[in-house]
Amino acid sequence: MGEPFFHVHRVRFDEVDAAGIAYFARFFTWCHDAMEAMLAPIDGGYVGLVVQRRLGLPAVHIESDFAAPLRFGETVRIAATVERVGTSSCALRFELTRGEDPGGAHVAKVRHVVALTDLATMRARPLPDDVRALLERHRTATP
Amino acid sequence: MGEPFFHVHRVRFDEVDAAGIAYFARFFTWCHDAMEAMLAPIDGGYVGLVVQRRLGLPAVHIESDFAAPLRFGETVRIAATVERVGTSSCALRFELTRGEDPGGAHVAKVRHVVALTDLATMRARPLPDDVRALLERHRTATP
Amino acid sequence: MGEPFFHVHRVRFDEVDAAGIAYFARFFTWCHDAMEAMLAPIDGGYVGLVVQRRLGLPAVHIESDFAAPLRFGETVRIAATVERVGTSSCALRFELTRGEDPGGAHVAKVRHVVALTDLATMRARPLPDDVRALLERHRTATP
Amino acid sequence: MGEPFFHVHRVRFDEVDAAGIAYFARFFTWCHDAMEAMLAPIDGGYVGLVVQRRLGLPAVHIESDFAAPLRFGETVRIAATVERVGTSSCALRFELTRGEDPGGAHVAKVRHVVALTDLATMRARPLPDDVRALLERHRTATP
Repeated sequence: MGEPFFHVHRVRFDEVDAAGIAYFARFFTWCHDAMEAMLAPIDGGYVGLVVQRRLGLPAVHIESDFAAPLRFGETVRIAATVERVGTSSCALRFELTRGEDPGGAHVAKVRHVVALTDLATMRARPLPDDVRALLERHRTATP
Repeated sequence: MGEPFFHVHRVRFDEVDAAGIAYFARFFTWCHDAMEAMLAPIDGGYVGLVVQRRLGLPAVHIESDFAAPLRFGETVRIAATVERVGTSSCALRFELTRGEDPGGAHVAKVRHVVALTDLATMRARPLPDDVRALLERHRTATP
Repeated sequence: MGEPFFHVHRVRFDEVDAAGIAYFARFFTWCHDAMEAMLAPIDGGYVGLVVQRRLGLPAVHIESDFAAPLRFGETVRIAATVERVGTSSCALRFELTRGEDPGGAHVAKVRHVVALTDLATMRARPLPDDVRALLERHRTATP
Repeated sequence: MGEPFFHVHRVRFDEVDAAGIAYFARFFTWCHDAMEAMLAPIDGGYVGLVVQRRLGLPAVHIESDFAAPLRFGETVRIAATVERVGTSSCALRFELTRGEDPGGAHVAKVRHVVALTDLATMRARPLPDDVRALLERHRTATP
């Protein structure tokens, strides 16, 4: 049973919308940032995967529930876990809670299925061993 | 049975990511733009709803499937329909196809549940009559 | 003496900041959008320049004055002119006024110097003839 | 003679453009982030200034020179200094160099004049004492 990966984000000045709350589409960017940070231990990190190896992890499916709004300057803690690892795809789960400490109020939940893709051909490819090993490290039982 | 509302977007220079394709979170912004455009006929449009009436339609649930990437300069046609209208929430469905003409290849599908919210209190409120009537105009049978 | 090129933008829901006004860095994006639209008549447009010919027009110098804020839903009219055309660079001038009609109140002024660049080498290159001809069409006397 | 304030940013996956380099308008956002971080020591930080005191620091003038492109994953070090402090405005200067360590190659230079503004009326107001004191701490002789 793997460990969650934790990532903290603070809502920036330009991330709110005309309703005065963090714009909903930003939540997906923060989760993507969390995924990138989680992949940092692989050789060259997510940057090396994309830039040197020309591989990417585009989204194929996303599901999310939004429970509470966030405002400018608030911090959100993202607990990223891996729900399932397939041949070329994997399902990531992100639990967003208020504040940077554990135990904050529930804010949102995102499930993000990505597929390892050759960026030259845009075709799916089997997950490289180092990416797979890293994902397994954060794999947890489905809640 | 209502009619779909059509909205066209062209992928901008700054909407691609380091993988060279339109960044996935932008798709949600385009669907939000489509929703805003669909609501234009209500008094003051979506802008009036937010700015004058201090009401909003924050996302409470989102589901999406991404079938094909989009590149800089490509156009995407968004067919927005209303799947369900509740007391204070409604479910919108967006079908994204390539190009601005009908019949383009499937690109993505987004289901977006929003809740009419008082922006002062952030509490749900019943949908105002004009918003409800507009939504009914685009309500279609669930595919 | 060339003609200005006009471009209209409406401030989007997600373009405001926590101060409730259009975020200042967005103004530069709108001016870039205006430049792209101005270049549409060249073969393949700005998209073709970047994607097929692998040439770009990165900013080398920007100057701007902000006179009045814009809010969600407001429209801004951008009058783009070309102040100077050099061997590989050119100076663009953008005058932003409120509303989509001529004669709106002054909002901001942006001067944007760009250099024609080979995107493979990131070296400056002489402006291609079609780009130069298009720029000359919008060249005006310096105010 | 004050000390520069240092801020480091890493170019994110979604901050590049279709030319494959960090989108120029993002540089202004990073400089704004540096200004926010520099103002953290005032009571409530920049967030408190905007949210509680309803004061802001909108841009009134910007000048910038771009010397070298940045790519996905590269870090940029921003040295922020205060060039001039007036009654209600101040001039900030940002020097961007490659990498997170001192001595990196020059990337860009941004001069950003902001005016302390009452967000309710959008009128200029004298700089509050704590903001002024903080700015003085980073004031340096003009290069």
